[in-house]
Amino acid sequence: MTAYRVEVRVMPRAALLDPQGQAVEHALHALGFGEVARVRVGKHLLLDVEAASRDEAAARARAMCDRLLANPVTEDFDVAVGTG
Amino acid sequence: MTAYRVEVRVMPRAALLDPQGQAVEHALHALGFGEVARVRVGKHLLLDVEAASRDEAAARARAMCDRLLANPVTEDFDVAVGTG
Repeated sequence: MTAYRVEVRVMPRAALLDPQGQAVEHALHALGFGEVARVRVGKHLLLDVEAASRDEAAARARAMCDRLLANPVTEDFDVAVGTG
Repeated sequence: MTAYRVEVRVMPRAALLDPQGQAVEHALHALGFGEVARVRVGKHLLLDVEAASRDEAAARARAMCDRLLANPVTEDFDVAVGTG
């Protein structure tokens, strides 16, 4: 068993409004960053997962997203497994 | 000017406690994911930045982090510029 460093990105679905992203965009404009658009805000998680292989670590991380880390109705997620 | 897609990752500094990460770790253990450890939770932002070059887009995104997106005392950030 090896401890794999797993990165999980959870973002609001593209088709949905993202009120937090809109608030950040307005705040950036007010600070003078007029060149920014289409801001979306999600979560980034880092976790160590003990597993027999990279594929198993990725599968377990996806199961964690399905059960807890992401809302299947409103969010999409990506899983990337780093070095063991 | 080109619109670059910029990804920003904002994470709690390694030396600091991360109460949200600890809460997620405990919840994962309670759901049967005993193989997970060292959970840390941060933010992931996607933004379009109009700029003359990739380097300028990255510099503007770092300025946004310094001014608004990250707390310099408690958080670190990474900026990655995608395709224009």
